[in-house]
Amino acid sequence: MRPSGRTSNQLRPIQITRQFTSHAEGSVLIEVGDTRVLCTASIESGVPRFLKGKNQGWLTAEYGMLPRSTHTRNAREAARGKQSGRTQEIQRLIGRSLRAAVDLELLGENTITIDCDVLQADGGTRTASITGASIALADAIKYMLRQKMIQTNPLKHMVAAISVGIYQGTPVLDLDYAEDSTAETDMNIVMNEDKGIIELQGTAEGATFSPTELAEMMQLAQQGISEIIEIQKASLS
Amino acid sequence: MRPSGRTSNQLRPIQITRQFTSHAEGSVLIEVGDTRVLCTASIESGVPRFLKGKNQGWLTAEYGMLPRSTHTRNAREAARGKQSGRTQEIQRLIGRSLRAAVDLELLGENTITIDCDVLQADGGTRTASITGASIALADAIKYMLRQKMIQTNPLKHMVAAISVGIYQGTPVLDLDYAEDSTAETDMNIVMNEDKGIIELQGTAEGATFSPTELAEMMQLAQQGISEIIEIQKASLS
Amino acid sequence: MRPSGRTSNQLRPIQITRQFTSHAEGSVLIEVGDTRVLCTASIESGVPRFLKGKNQGWLTAEYGMLPRSTHTRNAREAARGKQSGRTQEIQRLIGRSLRAAVDLELLGENTITIDCDVLQADGGTRTASITGASIALADAIKYMLRQKMIQTNPLKHMVAAISVGIYQGTPVLDLDYAEDSTAETDMNIVMNEDKGIIELQGTAEGATFSPTELAEMMQLAQQGISEIIEIQKASLS
Amino acid sequence: MRPSGRTSNQLRPIQITRQFTSHAEGSVLIEVGDTRVLCTASIESGVPRFLKGKNQGWLTAEYGMLPRSTHTRNAREAARGKQSGRTQEIQRLIGRSLRAAVDLELLGENTITIDCDVLQADGGTRTASITGASIALADAIKYMLRQKMIQTNPLKHMVAAISVGIYQGTPVLDLDYAEDSTAETDMNIVMNEDKGIIELQGTAEGATFSPTELAEMMQLAQQGISEIIEIQKASLS
Amino acid sequence: MRPSGRTSNQLRPIQITRQFTSHAEGSVLIEVGDTRVLCTASIESGVPRFLKGKNQGWLTAEYGMLPRSTHTRNAREAARGKQSGRTQEIQRLIGRSLRAAVDLELLGENTITIDCDVLQADGGTRTASITGASIALADAIKYMLRQKMIQTNPLKHMVAAISVGIYQGTPVLDLDYAEDSTAETDMNIVMNEDKGIIELQGTAEGATFSPTELAEMMQLAQQGISEIIEIQKASLS
Amino acid sequence: MRPSGRTSNQLRPIQITRQFTSHAEGSVLIEVGDTRVLCTASIESGVPRFLKGKNQGWLTAEYGMLPRSTHTRNAREAARGKQSGRTQEIQRLIGRSLRAAVDLELLGENTITIDCDVLQADGGTRTASITGASIALADAIKYMLRQKMIQTNPLKHMVAAISVGIYQGTPVLDLDYAEDSTAETDMNIVMNEDKGIIELQGTAEGATFSPTELAEMMQLAQQGISEIIEIQKASLS
Repeated sequence: MRPSGRTSNQLRPIQITRQFTSHAEGSVLIEVGDTRVLCTASIESGVPRFLKGKNQGWLTAEYGMLPRSTHTRNAREAARGKQSGRTQEIQRLIGRSLRAAVDLELLGENTITIDCDVLQADGGTRTASITGASIALADAIKYMLRQKMIQTNPLKHMVAAISVGIYQGTPVLDLDYAEDSTAETDMNIVMNEDKGIIELQGTAEGATFSPTELAEMMQLAQQGISEIIEIQKASLS
Repeated sequence: MRPSGRTSNQLRPIQITRQFTSHAEGSVLIEVGDTRVLCTASIESGVPRFLKGKNQGWLTAEYGMLPRSTHTRNAREAARGKQSGRTQEIQRLIGRSLRAAVDLELLGENTITIDCDVLQADGGTRTASITGASIALADAIKYMLRQKMIQTNPLKHMVAAISVGIYQGTPVLDLDYAEDSTAETDMNIVMNEDKGIIELQGTAEGATFSPTELAEMMQLAQQGISEIIEIQKASLS
Repeated sequence: MRPSGRTSNQLRPIQITRQFTSHAEGSVLIEVGDTRVLCTASIESGVPRFLKGKNQGWLTAEYGMLPRSTHTRNAREAARGKQSGRTQEIQRLIGRSLRAAVDLELLGENTITIDCDVLQADGGTRTASITGASIALADAIKYMLRQKMIQTNPLKHMVAAISVGIYQGTPVLDLDYAEDSTAETDMNIVMNEDKGIIELQGTAEGATFSPTELAEMMQLAQQGISEIIEIQKASLS
Repeated sequence: MRPSGRTSNQLRPIQITRQFTSHAEGSVLIEVGDTRVLCTASIESGVPRFLKGKNQGWLTAEYGMLPRSTHTRNAREAARGKQSGRTQEIQRLIGRSLRAAVDLELLGENTITIDCDVLQADGGTRTASITGASIALADAIKYMLRQKMIQTNPLKHMVAAISVGIYQGTPVLDLDYAEDSTAETDMNIVMNEDKGIIELQGTAEGATFSPTELAEMMQLAQQGISEIIEIQKASLS
Repeated sequence: MRPSGRTSNQLRPIQITRQFTSHAEGSVLIEVGDTRVLCTASIESGVPRFLKGKNQGWLTAEYGMLPRSTHTRNAREAARGKQSGRTQEIQRLIGRSLRAAVDLELLGENTITIDCDVLQADGGTRTASITGASIALADAIKYMLRQKMIQTNPLKHMVAAISVGIYQGTPVLDLDYAEDSTAETDMNIVMNEDKGIIELQGTAEGATFSPTELAEMMQLAQQGISEIIEIQKASLS
Repeated sequence: MRPSGRTSNQLRPIQITRQFTSHAEGSVLIEVGDTRVLCTASIESGVPRFLKGKNQGWLTAEYGMLPRSTHTRNAREAARGKQSGRTQEIQRLIGRSLRAAVDLELLGENTITIDCDVLQADGGTRTASITGASIALADAIKYMLRQKMIQTNPLKHMVAAISVGIYQGTPVLDLDYAEDSTAETDMNIVMNEDKGIIELQGTAEGATFSPTELAEMMQLAQQGISEIIEIQKASLS
């Protein structure tokens, strides 16, 4: 029995609000259960130095948690003077996942910066970030097309992410904080709308897991991501 | 004529949402026109080292802007590895303003941390932060009383803040971004519900201002703050 | 009765030594009672990146306290690896105040850096810094004119600053450390020689202050600044 | 055909030198083909603050590359003043992997610090680090038992790691740099001697991968890790 | 012929002003020609963590240059966020030199912090710092004895420092900036009043130097330091 | 009697392994007794900004100790976020010493970066670094000549370094850790193959030393460096 009463393959309700803030070219508030993340996509012309003159664009991502998005207050990273290893790990994951969705040559010499800021955390902030940012990215690219900054749509596919895990011996989909903090295994999976795997990160906490359990979790993830991609498409149409 | 069509002594509409997020003891989303700030008040038992054993509590504040709360994206301070001078100036102002509202001895050896995070900026983020944080603070103190962490209410009075300025030669109340970026003078005023001045910070940009203009601006500010304190009280009742 | 025996509108003695050090284009030791600040103005050709090609100059300021300029030793900011919020707040104030004195277009693509380093602190270091830096600035600009780096004098007016406050219920001028550390209200005012207000920063410590008290303090400040500007002019002639 | 001429399921030669340096309680030079990593395990009594009084030990890991361990010189992280996101990601992975091998309660209030420093890089430095560190850890624990710092062996099992990937459409084991830099998919797997999965991190570069390909790569990894654990055991006996 | 017209074994004029500032237990302005350094000695009770409970005191030193103490302005180290390698090298030298003058056990569990801040630089700032700090240290120790913080004088001897070098082929004493910037060899020597060598740091710039030249420079240094120690003693009596 | 049983003028055995790692243009493992340092020389085209357009090259050096190269583990400087004063002092010494060996104009607009990383420390790591780096430098320059990056050999001479000291009242050559940690005086000397002194750094710990002792130590150093230069030349032929 899951603490939330959900069945093992049941997602939390997902709410997507586009244009949540007004300045960004793409701005999405994604709510997955009680987890709430504000994802923006910002366009700047030009590329980082290491890409100058290579005739391609770039996409990068940053992630942060508001200090009191969590049960107890976390120190503000700007005040501590550095981003934690966890933060860097997550923003690198978001960046790789969304770069996989974009044809960087079609993007021209432009840079898209994704910002994912967690307003409220209840487990699964990194996967919610990727799912929400994918929509913000789609909006930003539409803006570029409208503004004729680019000619051809560089978006290859939608990207979505979900966590799976083993909770009290059973593979379950979309762990919330109550499950996440005690799960034996926690795995985050990023896939595209064609069921291709982009990223996979699984960690055993305490017990290890077997290839069979891995296959079961993959099963759950595929189903969950299909549902999420439906929700993404609905919100964009 | 103000860009927004407001009269010179007219505030922007103010919207206050209490319990905007669920973990903090006080959590307020304040919207002043298009400026939106999330203000939380977090309680921790214990005090900073310099107050150990002095039989009193402490209140401190931190401020941040989400990178894309502004027209063009600002670098994330956590990634740059330090808070700007502007950020520090603002969070020191917020801290002093709200400490003025609390009897620190009645607070016991507890620390309240105020976090003001700007989701969307359209001028007046520091004054909106103070006004919103004052409500979050009131909620956090109610929590402490309910939990019997303290016996006596340490809140001395509500605190509110507003900007005034001289725009195209005329003193105006509550500058938005369009005004703020071209005003000759910009002044932020913090007062309590008893019309006592807590903080005053005025800066001439380009032209200087005279003691007479200062008095006129004070006039506007007093009236504006009275209105704001009514709104605060309504939202708390 | 003030600890120093001064009357409520009496300045401390001010001593100005020009060319205190030899390398800077402007170098002034200002002594206000026991407060001593070394103010230098340094000229460099070129402007910061954000002003490149805009056909104007720039003026910026930095402030520091020697570790043992104070009663007990303060940690050296260079060793701690960052400037405190207070330091940044003060150097931003000095920079804004002196930029108000210069026509940046007449300055050409040159940068003037003001350094204010406190050798001994007894209250009022930020206002002494502004008053002293104004003279160092005047000297540096004379140097530029002599060297034909610029054709027209970009100095619009002298700038001076003073603190006022409410000490034991009475408005007083030019607080020293003994007063400053116990005053109910502390306000710093920057004005030019034409009695225009450039900056105003007032803070209530403990009690608040009323618009009437504000007007009384403004009165004192105006008179004090007039006297200081006389002293500045005498020292420059 | 792989650049090295290896078959798709063939490991590079592995060389393990114990006691490579003299001061550390465990010190192992591991060579996997041309990749060379020095892994040390250092024992200190006491635990980090967050574990004080919890009656358990701790294990943590740090990772670094010598500036010229790579084809072109990388900036020294100590000189740049921070560890890169990649470095932090890797050292967190090493730490989690080896903590999974130790019963922290049996370790007592002691801390083991694993240092993995890459002397020469040719792909697979993070997996070589884990494999080598597992042996250094075993040696350090033997030292603790010999010194009677602990009574019962807290080592639960050996841990080993390997990379697998899809290179030119074919799943291959143990990618070297020539493969790694052009592989479509790169996955790192950490397992224990009982074939339990501890960590799994797969990234698609360019193309995505399918659950079937994932299963094939898991197959290769299991076989490879079995061979590596044999080598570890031989080196320890 | 030296640029200053001095003979090869001639010191620059030395001026020592004790109690230059009022808060520090020892405060000395030392002027060596046009080089001016403010040296303070501050007493704090307690010792750094690594000496706790060892029944001894500590002495440490910090060094800084005001940004415009030099011909062209140097970036402020506090603003850059770190001390340069040169600064650290110098402050370590000052600390070692003065620790050699103090019996740390007789100092009790107290810490003396030496601050040497260069107001104006014309070569030889590190040696002037040591010479001046030695006097500030003597004053601070007198203060401790007067205050009965310690019973027995822990000062073993005065310490003084001077530079020697080879300028246009000739060994010379006490290089000023004009010589220092073109000298073939530059050597700093710290000795005590009993002619014992405490520190010796010689660097060849361009050409190397021979043991014979080293002996000649040592000769000059010994004579120079004898003269300086006379001046120190005169200033203290 | 020395702890190692060596005579007072006896070097520890020196082992030099060229091409210890494969990527660097020069890569040398130097072993001096139990001290082991990996020295690499890396070539990059271009020069630092301050030398742009001056038609010359540059050589710089960095130094580090692996965290467990020492008896007890030292914090990793990359994790602490800064290099210690000691590290900076040493790398500046290595840089100056090797720049003295190179005609920077003949080097063209190229930069050579020396990295000295201590794998195991038993005293004398900075002198071993210089001696080893001199060989790595020679190898890197040969590479440049072979690749026709430069026409004329810019290497002026070999450089070697050794420590001398006063141990239990007797001058001794090449202090190991057991001696170094208790020696009264410790001096590091860098010379070239023509017996010219490049750098000299002597520190008295506890007692001071006399000019006569200095001359005796210089004697020992000269003899030791002659032997080392023979070993360097043998290893290069």
